[in-house]
Amino acid sequence: MVVYVASSTAPVNIATLKYWGKRDKILNLPTNSSISVTLCQDDLRTLTTASTSDLFENDQLWLNGEIHSLTSERTIMCLNDLRMLRKRLEDNDPLLPKISTWKLHIVSENNFPTAAGLASSAAGFAALISSISKLYQLPQSASELSKIARKGSGSACRSLFGGYVAWEMGELDNGEDSKAVEVAPKSHWPEMKACILVVSDHKKDVPSTSGMQLTVNTSDLFQYRIKQVVPNRFIEMKNSIIEKNFEKFAELTIKDSNSFHSVCLDSYPPIFYLNDTSKMIIKLINYLNEKNGKLIAAYTFDAGPNAVIYYLEEHESEVLGLLYKIFNKVKIGWENYKNLNKLSNFDNIAELETFDEIYKGVSRIILTQIGDGPMETEECLIDLETGLPKK
Amino acid sequence: MVVYVASSTAPVNIATLKYWGKRDKILNLPTNSSISVTLCQDDLRTLTTASTSDLFENDQLWLNGEIHSLTSERTIMCLNDLRMLRKRLEDNDPLLPKISTWKLHIVSENNFPTAAGLASSAAGFAALISSISKLYQLPQSASELSKIARKGSGSACRSLFGGYVAWEMGELDNGEDSKAVEVAPKSHWPEMKACILVVSDHKKDVPSTSGMQLTVNTSDLFQYRIKQVVPNRFIEMKNSIIEKNFEKFAELTIKDSNSFHSVCLDSYPPIFYLNDTSKMIIKLINYLNEKNGKLIAAYTFDAGPNAVIYYLEEHESEVLGLLYKIFNKVKIGWENYKNLNKLSNFDNIAELETFDEIYKGVSRIILTQIGDGPMETEECLIDLETGLPKK
Repeated sequence: MVVYVASSTAPVNIATLKYWGKRDKILNLPTNSSISVTLCQDDLRTLTTASTSDLFENDQLWLNGEIHSLTSERTIMCLNDLRMLRKRLEDNDPLLPKISTWKLHIVSENNFPTAAGLASSAAGFAALISSISKLYQLPQSASELSKIARKGSGSACRSLFGGYVAWEMGELDNGEDSKAVEVAPKSHWPEMKACILVVSDHKKDVPSTSGMQLTVNTSDLFQYRIKQVVPNRFIEMKNSIIEKNFEKFAELTIKDSNSFHSVCLDSYPPIFYLNDTSKMIIKLINYLNEKNGKLIAAYTFDAGPNAVIYYLEEHESEVLGLLYKIFNKVKIGWENYKNLNKLSNFDNIAELETFDEIYKGVSRIILTQIGDGPMETEECLIDLETGLPKK
Repeated sequence: MVVYVASSTAPVNIATLKYWGKRDKILNLPTNSSISVTLCQDDLRTLTTASTSDLFENDQLWLNGEIHSLTSERTIMCLNDLRMLRKRLEDNDPLLPKISTWKLHIVSENNFPTAAGLASSAAGFAALISSISKLYQLPQSASELSKIARKGSGSACRSLFGGYVAWEMGELDNGEDSKAVEVAPKSHWPEMKACILVVSDHKKDVPSTSGMQLTVNTSDLFQYRIKQVVPNRFIEMKNSIIEKNFEKFAELTIKDSNSFHSVCLDSYPPIFYLNDTSKMIIKLINYLNEKNGKLIAAYTFDAGPNAVIYYLEEHESEVLGLLYKIFNKVKIGWENYKNLNKLSNFDNIAELETFDEIYKGVSRIILTQIGDGPMETEECLIDLETGLPKK
């Protein structure tokens, strides 16, 4: 049995300028440009092995040990695009094996619990596109591939890059100019750290795909956000990254998280992703920044109650010092942190009593930092003898 | 001892198109027009007796049994305006006693607990202005008096009228065209009912005066709200009242509550007035409206977590039926309601299980309806012998 195989990992990214709203639902073309920070794959990544063989009977996916079909419209669009690019290569070079017509077996695993409610579809589609493009030996750039990932899941396009990433919304109807580009590599500003507070929630609110369309169709304030607020903020945030101006970056990140949740609340009926724990985390970060007399931490919330706190390494003892003081009873997350004894000691001042109970709303803490884009790996999740997932 | 005395009651009003933002902080001139429904004074009112005597040494206020000075800047502005109007009468008619120069003793009582967190300042200033204008026998109309009440507390101007009331923002710098007017009297659409769910909260967020200025100064979306959203909604909501179109009225009321809380959240730092209980009440009203296939209830939230639900008498059994099912364990509020047995029975369907616990976040229920404006009363809170509050 001849089995071609290639593996790739891809990271999670967390937007600091939010993607919310599609102008084309099929092609996942957004109503505004967005910016994100790619997180470190040691802590959060999808590993995907793509394989193909003329003996495979169906396109098939094994995701975290469970079998899935590859028949969703979005996945089919991605596979078609990749096969078309491969076919072009084959047409130009008769020596290449004609694997573009063969079926695919894909095995994919996350190194983080899906239960955490962290957007795993971005890393998932980015790893899928990366592994197959490697399998097909495609010459396309990350930006070109990002257009394919975008069709799978909008924000996945940003996971094709490490560091600081922009998704340029583009103007064309066919989406050919709606792609991810690098704002700055990780090496430009490697001191960016992230702490994710995984907030427990009884029940998910509206899923993001239907949520964003509800906002597009019903929120008055949304029109102002996409036409006036975001275009300016996009330029300012890129500049803050290029200039490594954390205070500006933090202010814009906080404001854009607020703005995004505002237009959710302005939808009809309103959409709520922040819960009382999220709100207390916002107040805690405000308190921290005020106490320090400048912005040393920025919060951002996606379509759920989880908080992501960005801060620079130089302020780790203040930021994690406060977070450890409030959340030290959270069972998962601190065990890997080596410098607990170095954290600054916050006094038991009265202002902090307000936050006494909020650790109960947090189930897990993930300490991570800025990271790299997709990486090829020799790790292989498929048994080459059988073409099936390794045990 | 000669003591002149007059008493007046004034109602609470709850805005359906929200006042949020001042263009002039001293004169309480708003950034947008607003609309409210006046609530019934049997359930919520302030009773104020104003008295004056040449023997009184200071302007003095007794509010709910506690003594207060009348030296706040806002109160002084109101008293000055009223004394000036009285002085004009005295100047024109030498037979009138010159009471405009005498000190005032004011006694004021609410028939509802201040602890409930219901905006009592509107009813308070409206009763103050009404009682003194009666004491001074002023000929000014309610709209004219509303400009004085506005200087005391912006939304107080709307409590000078019963029924459906608009506060026209005006354009003049001196505020002479920023006043309350009647949209329609209570008799035009008397079937409007209101249920207030008093939501417990650990701690108040930002007080509304500083909150609205934070929004004015920092929210991008706020500019769009006041320039584009509210002006259209103001016209539409007045029409919905004139046409007695409850579905339209409800949609606009809900959307404006959402919009107001959106611009609070878009402030920097963000302001939160809705808590998790408020959010569940919003979901409950959505559920009720969806189940009925049309809007039969409208929620609105002021600068706090309390919900006010408007509905028409014809839908009382559906609306109160659901509210009683969810909130029957709330200890205060249902005891005065005579028709509990007539409420429609909601089945124990799975959808309602989501709401099983929310009654714990509600401390009191107030069942009321649309009501009249300020009323003169013979009830007197002052002992004419002493010029002090009756025991």
